[in-house]
Amino acid sequence: MPRGRFLSLEGGEGAGKSTQARALAAALRERGVETVVTREPGGSAGAEAIRALLLEGEAGRWSARAETLLFAAARADHVEKVIGPALDAGRWVICDRYVDSTRAYQGVAGGIADADVLALHAFGSKGLFPERTFLLTVAPDIGAARAAERDRGATDRFASRDDAFHVAVAAAFATFDRLAEGEPERFRRIDAAQAPEAVTAAMLAELADWLP
Amino acid sequence: MPRGRFLSLEGGEGAGKSTQARALAAALRERGVETVVTREPGGSAGAEAIRALLLEGEAGRWSARAETLLFAAARADHVEKVIGPALDAGRWVICDRYVDSTRAYQGVAGGIADADVLALHAFGSKGLFPERTFLLTVAPDIGAARAAERDRGATDRFASRDDAFHVAVAAAFATFDRLAEGEPERFRRIDAAQAPEAVTAAMLAELADWLP
Repeated sequence: MPRGRFLSLEGGEGAGKSTQARALAAALRERGVETVVTREPGGSAGAEAIRALLLEGEAGRWSARAETLLFAAARADHVEKVIGPALDAGRWVICDRYVDSTRAYQGVAGGIADADVLALHAFGSKGLFPERTFLLTVAPDIGAARAAERDRGATDRFASRDDAFHVAVAAAFATFDRLAEGEPERFRRIDAAQAPEAVTAAMLAELADWLP
Repeated sequence: MPRGRFLSLEGGEGAGKSTQARALAAALRERGVETVVTREPGGSAGAEAIRALLLEGEAGRWSARAETLLFAAARADHVEKVIGPALDAGRWVICDRYVDSTRAYQGVAGGIADADVLALHAFGSKGLFPERTFLLTVAPDIGAARAAERDRGATDRFASRDDAFHVAVAAAFATFDRLAEGEPERFRRIDAAQAPEAVTAAMLAELADWLP
């Protein structure tokens, strides 16, 4: 059995990643491709328990270094228990955020060197990268408005951070752009300001070479 | 204000580390040294939350790599929130288990390379090591009997592991010996088969050069 394909969706808040992950999976299943949708942080029982530690509590609960180690631990569990077995069984995996989010948020916004993030990823998850990463792009103000609508009343650690952090997150948007420029074969930019159906169709078009 | 001294206690199960940490702190306080007793995994609010993840659930809940990352995350929090501030304030810190336990248990028993454990420690905790580490030595069968008496009815993940793990833990005892041989200035072996008061006195004697 051929190994499944590993895809990730990245982008800022409010780009529609979760919705598009489900829509892309539905479209792949229509084409006969067994597909698993998962997310980070979380995606396995252990990683979801770590996710709870990451999202609960005060904004300053964890240092950037402790946080980055927790993300790496969660990812190691997720890869070992869910992503790896699914790929081995020939299923495709669509992951809503993966290591590129750690590079953008803990890395650039949190001040952790990219080489350190990648070293932890090599240690915990054998450096497993997606074969294709869709960067869903949307103007930051539109994304922020969408995320605010979605998260109304939510008070998790990332929603409650201070302005300085949000400025840093804007820098993270720029990081996604830079990562995408550096790896044009893996990254495909998708304009997420389009109608949802058009976004899904654009991702499918970028997978045409792998589809039956 | 001079920086405080950082001490750790290491050794196998049933060597009396927790009891001796408290006894040593009491003896230091009698001599006018402000002393903090702490433990790993745990020792700070965040690290205690990670400790719960490490000790609860099934024996196979975490891979050795995920487990090692969780220990490093917990230690990063512990060093940042408790150990570092106490040392900066001139207090001495006695830690019941520290990174040498990760080197022995996750490292040798879990198959993680020592260089990887040390790299994670450098990343998370700036490679902070104790200035003096007391290796409490006790014959493995005596330690096992003491630990069994103490833990009667306990069912945490480490108590419930299988025979193969306990064989590996015996190898960890040998690891502590090897670490102590490699760093004779930092490590001091203490015969923990003695009466408790004699064990405490032996540790105090090894601190004579630093005491007022």
